[in-house]
Amino acid sequence: MLDVPFLPFCALLGGLGFVCVAFVSAWCQHWRGGFSWDGSARTFNWHPVLMVTGMVVLYGAAALVYRLPPSWRGPKLPWKVLHGALALAAFILAVLGLVAVFRFHNEHGTPNMYSLHSWLGLATVLLFSCQWLAGFSAFLLPWAPTWLRALYKPIHVFFGSTILLLSVASCVSGINEKLFFSLKNGTMDYKHLPAEAVFANTLGLLIILFGVLVLGALARPSWKRPDADSPDSCQVPAQLSEH
Amino acid sequence: MLDVPFLPFCALLGGLGFVCVAFVSAWCQHWRGGFSWDGSARTFNWHPVLMVTGMVVLYGAAALVYRLPPSWRGPKLPWKVLHGALALAAFILAVLGLVAVFRFHNEHGTPNMYSLHSWLGLATVLLFSCQWLAGFSAFLLPWAPTWLRALYKPIHVFFGSTILLLSVASCVSGINEKLFFSLKNGTMDYKHLPAEAVFANTLGLLIILFGVLVLGALARPSWKRPDADSPDSCQVPAQLSEH
Repeated sequence: MLDVPFLPFCALLGGLGFVCVAFVSAWCQHWRGGFSWDGSARTFNWHPVLMVTGMVVLYGAAALVYRLPPSWRGPKLPWKVLHGALALAAFILAVLGLVAVFRFHNEHGTPNMYSLHSWLGLATVLLFSCQWLAGFSAFLLPWAPTWLRALYKPIHVFFGSTILLLSVASCVSGINEKLFFSLKNGTMDYKHLPAEAVFANTLGLLIILFGVLVLGALARPSWKRPDADSPDSCQVPAQLSEH
Repeated sequence: MLDVPFLPFCALLGGLGFVCVAFVSAWCQHWRGGFSWDGSARTFNWHPVLMVTGMVVLYGAAALVYRLPPSWRGPKLPWKVLHGALALAAFILAVLGLVAVFRFHNEHGTPNMYSLHSWLGLATVLLFSCQWLAGFSAFLLPWAPTWLRALYKPIHVFFGSTILLLSVASCVSGINEKLFFSLKNGTMDYKHLPAEAVFANTLGLLIILFGVLVLGALARPSWKRPDADSPDSCQVPAQLSEH
C-alpha cells in the first residue's frame, strides 16, 4: 500500500484513541449525568468509558508494541513486559467496567446477561483473560519450551486481532443499545436524532476507525518485526544468545 | 498455526454460512411472522435475511475465491469473474435488503438513518459499492496499467477485510436492536431471555464466528496464492504470456 512510516501513523492513532476516550467521557459527563460509584445510572456511566479505554484504546496500544522499530533490536524482554503490562491494564479497566454495569443492574433489579451485546462483550473479556494468561505463561515465564512458544505464537497473534474485532463489535452494539434505552421520549427520541445521538453515533464510528486502523497496522507486512515468523520468543538479549 | 488444509476448512465454513442463513430465515419465519413485500413488518423481515446472506455469507465466499488452490494455476480471468460475480450477487442482495427496510420505515412513517446501526450499515454498503466498482475497473477491464493495479491491489485487499468486519459489526448491532424493538412485553421481554432471544443471540455469535474464520483464512500466509504479493493482475493466460 502507500508507503506510510509507522511512527507518524502511530501518532495519528494515539490522537484518535485520545479522541475516542474524550468522546465517550464527554457523552457520559455531559448527557448522561456524570460519574459515581453509588449503584445509580452514574455508576453505569463508568461502563462505556472503561470498556472503550481498556478494550479498545489500551488494548490497541498493547497490540502495536512489537510494531515499534526500537523493539526490533536488543533484548526482547522489556518489550514483552510493556506488551503484557499494557494488556493487563486494559484487562483491569475492562473488569472494572463489567463491575460497574453488574452493580448498576443489581441495584435496579435488572437481569444481567440477556442481550447479544452482553453475551458478546462478556465472551470477549473472557477470551481476553485466557489470551493474557496463556501469553504470560508461554512468553514471559521462562520455562515454556521453544516448540510450545513456536506453536502458540501464531494462535496468540490470531486471537489478538480477533479480540479487538470482538471489542469493536461489542462497543458498537453497546452504544446503539444505550441510545435506544436513554433516548425515548418526545423530541429526545433517538429517532429524531438529537445532538446526543449524533455525538454518540460519531463516537461509534471513531471506535470502528480506530479498530480498523490497528488491525490494518497489525496485518501490514512491512511493519512486522523482521523475525516475526521465526519461532524465537526467548527473552535472552541478542548479544548473549549469539555467544 | 495448526496445519489445517484449506478445503476441509472451506467445507466447514460453507456449512457454517448455511447455518447462519438458515438461522436468520428461521428467526424471521418462525418468530417474526414470515415474509412479504407489502410494506408491513413482513417486508422488514427480508432485511436481516438479505443482509446476512449477502454482506456476510456470499461476501465471505467471494473473498475466499483466491484461496482455492485451483485458482493458483492457469488463467486468472475465470477466477476474477467468479470473485466479481459473487461480490456482485452479495451487493445486489444487500441493496434489496436496504430497500426492504427503507420501504418498511416509509410505510410506517418511521425516520430512516438515525441509529448507529443504520449509519454503520449504510457506510458499509457504500464502501462495498466503491470497492466493487474500483475492483471491476482496475482488475477486470483490460485497460488499467500494471502500475495502477499494483498500487491498488493491497488497498483492495485491505478494504476487502475491513468491509467484512464492518458487516459483522452491523449485523450484531442490528440483531441486538431488533430484539429490543420486538421483545418488549411481559414474559416476552428481551430481559427475560425468551426462546427467540436465545435463538437470535446465537445467530449473532454464529455470524461473528463466520466472520472471524473468513478473516483468519484471508490473513493466513500459507493459504495465499504463491504470487499474492506480486503486482501481476493481468488476465492473460499463463501459456500466452510466456510467449
